[in-house]
Amino acid sequence: MNILVNPEEKVWKKAVERPVFKTKQINKIVKPILRKVKRNGDKALIKYAYEFDHVELESLLVPQSEIKAAADELSPQLKEAIQKAKANIERFHQAQETPELIEEVMPGVVCRRKSVAIQRVGLYIPGGTAPLFSTVLMLGIPAKIAGCKEIVLCTPPNVEGKVHPAIIYTADLIGIHKIVKVGGAQAVAAMTFGTDTVPQVDKIFGPGNQFVTAAKQMATKYGVAIDMPAGPSEVLVYADDSTPAEFVAADLLSQAEHGVDSQVVLVTHSQKFAKKVLKEIDAQLEVLPRKDIAAKSLDNSVAIVVKDLQEALNLINFYAPEHLIISVENEEEAVEGIVNAGSIFIGKYTPESVGDYASGTNHTLPTYGYARNYSGVSLDSFVKKITYQKLSPEGIQNIGPTVEVMAENELLHAHKNAVTVRLNSLKKNK
Amino acid sequence: MNILVNPEEKVWKKAVERPVFKTKQINKIVKPILRKVKRNGDKALIKYAYEFDHVELESLLVPQSEIKAAADELSPQLKEAIQKAKANIERFHQAQETPELIEEVMPGVVCRRKSVAIQRVGLYIPGGTAPLFSTVLMLGIPAKIAGCKEIVLCTPPNVEGKVHPAIIYTADLIGIHKIVKVGGAQAVAAMTFGTDTVPQVDKIFGPGNQFVTAAKQMATKYGVAIDMPAGPSEVLVYADDSTPAEFVAADLLSQAEHGVDSQVVLVTHSQKFAKKVLKEIDAQLEVLPRKDIAAKSLDNSVAIVVKDLQEALNLINFYAPEHLIISVENEEEAVEGIVNAGSIFIGKYTPESVGDYASGTNHTLPTYGYARNYSGVSLDSFVKKITYQKLSPEGIQNIGPTVEVMAENELLHAHKNAVTVRLNSLKKNK
Repeated sequence: MNILVNPEEKVWKKAVERPVFKTKQINKIVKPILRKVKRNGDKALIKYAYEFDHVELESLLVPQSEIKAAADELSPQLKEAIQKAKANIERFHQAQETPELIEEVMPGVVCRRKSVAIQRVGLYIPGGTAPLFSTVLMLGIPAKIAGCKEIVLCTPPNVEGKVHPAIIYTADLIGIHKIVKVGGAQAVAAMTFGTDTVPQVDKIFGPGNQFVTAAKQMATKYGVAIDMPAGPSEVLVYADDSTPAEFVAADLLSQAEHGVDSQVVLVTHSQKFAKKVLKEIDAQLEVLPRKDIAAKSLDNSVAIVVKDLQEALNLINFYAPEHLIISVENEEEAVEGIVNAGSIFIGKYTPESVGDYASGTNHTLPTYGYARNYSGVSLDSFVKKITYQKLSPEGIQNIGPTVEVMAENELLHAHKNAVTVRLNSLKKNK
Repeated sequence: MNILVNPEEKVWKKAVERPVFKTKQINKIVKPILRKVKRNGDKALIKYAYEFDHVELESLLVPQSEIKAAADELSPQLKEAIQKAKANIERFHQAQETPELIEEVMPGVVCRRKSVAIQRVGLYIPGGTAPLFSTVLMLGIPAKIAGCKEIVLCTPPNVEGKVHPAIIYTADLIGIHKIVKVGGAQAVAAMTFGTDTVPQVDKIFGPGNQFVTAAKQMATKYGVAIDMPAGPSEVLVYADDSTPAEFVAADLLSQAEHGVDSQVVLVTHSQKFAKKVLKEIDAQLEVLPRKDIAAKSLDNSVAIVVKDLQEALNLINFYAPEHLIISVENEEEAVEGIVNAGSIFIGKYTPESVGDYASGTNHTLPTYGYARNYSGVSLDSFVKKITYQKLSPEGIQNIGPTVEVMAENELLHAHKNAVTVRLNSLKKNK
């Protein structure tokens, strides 16, 4: 991790450049997977489980017996922690419910707007090295609150053909009972086209490796929506020496351990503080189990010394971080100045990991600069907002002539006529 | 337009199939346009204006003098109509503002969520046969309410190198002053990469032909967001004989005149009523200026007779229409049963064209079945919702142990450590 002191604005782009991906190779592998799952359904899924997960599955669905048994396999502490996190996430996502909007914009012209659940959603939970039960909470809870009719959870089986009990327990706790042992691009394909076991869905959520990401991107060509474009996770910490360097180092490392392509950025006002943080990182890194991963991702990372708050804000808004920790003395002023970020962690007692697990906000956030134009996952992500309008005879008489003039000037006479026939019939009936 | 009587559910897909597009050819044309605009900027735009719009432009920006002159070129009636529509649209979109959400989910753990404007947006207004000033209202008004910092409007010039005064007048009325004479895929490219005249934007909005649509889709590969995937416009009318056949015919035709690939669907309970509507269509079609277009699009269209309300609802939700007119006796029950639609027009005095222009709802809506998983454009489309969290020492003590347990179980020890260092420092300070 290098320290850049007062870099000119024109070198920012280069300084905080995110890792670039070669998607061509990946797409070449993913494309036939989609095709084969579309054609062969469950059969293809079982074949891929053998090929990629090295397991012979007899059935894809997690059976009721395993769901019942999952709770007994977890420690009471973990179950309690999951329940506490669930309560916070539920509370904050329930508070996001939008009441129905009803406006009589002029006499007799009533407009409405109402959130209606996306009916069928698919949640993808990666397997790999760790059982990401926290993502089950982050996706499952808003799906349930929204009232999605069909919720399917896909996650790869381990070498014994099982799903980790923490994932099963969490899903069951939320009320998701269709858990399918399928991972990777083939899981996305199954939710896109539907198979005997996996229902076809309207929208696919969830993180994943580059194969999953590529498959989600391809799925959009078949009418499925996805939560957001994905990239590796990242954090930008804006801190000064009002925060212990130990805290800042721990926050940077907690992001760095995610994967070798993660990026962490430190923005600060003093080179001395930056050096102190880097020294702390070295010390903490030594004892981390995922030390090698974190060390590699620190190579993609940089500490930037800026001259003042305004420059810090400009740089942060330019970078548009997924996670932004602001731990400086005048924190409120700094927070006010942020226009591009996924989620913001304020003050020295708010590490990113509280948001990753249990503060109540969602941890599925826009990476890779998409915080400029995308929100993180929220209750909104599981609904669409349908508009309604109803005009009374008085209403059409009030707004009709306006529509007639506009339609005529856009040369759309049939649009005009749809109003005219109604106005005429009302004249006749007088 | 054929009448299908009580078709079985398994043939629905075929019966209401939307026109399919050959995108390969289009993409081949659009790709080099993006590349050249990226490389040559304004120069490329001027070259394409000559090539595609047959006009030699000296400057791309609509000059202040033309903006000032535009109002004088419009009739007082049209200006008044635009102002009335603006008032309704403004009122309904202002009502969509979401107040900041603040929740103390547990003592010392405060979560917030706030709408922040997408900073730079681009609005594309098609030229072609008609000046779509209504789309200027639909995109410009929410962009202004959201507080987008930079708003650029791109629209192709006519053969005299001018933009229609109704478009200029409407933009100016809303407060959009950067109007650029550029259309087609090259306009999308310009907003994606930025040129000397056209600023680079974060999100691109607006309808367009297949070239514009293809360019928008490609733009997403460069970090730009788009309003929604596009397809030709469509309406489904669910009506019974409580509505005059004349009204229903006028509504179907108002959609059919949009373009040869538009689709209109009638759902009703009686074959007799369907026949009556078709007869009315023939009569009204005769006098339409866009008769040829409407006639062709009626070829993609169908009337379906269903046996009861439930079957009607199933069929409508399956089709997921962009525009849905419900004009049946038990309209409220029918409206309640709809889960997939872009915008719903209720009752016999609510033609689709009121929503297209002036009722207050937005006319940029999900087509092509995307009403299953996308909302229409609204104030939401111009903001992202950033989440915030702030923990006090009490807060981290309350939630910290939960986070530690969860992180440990996901094998993310650095995540755990970011909490542990803080809890330890608080213990020491006691």
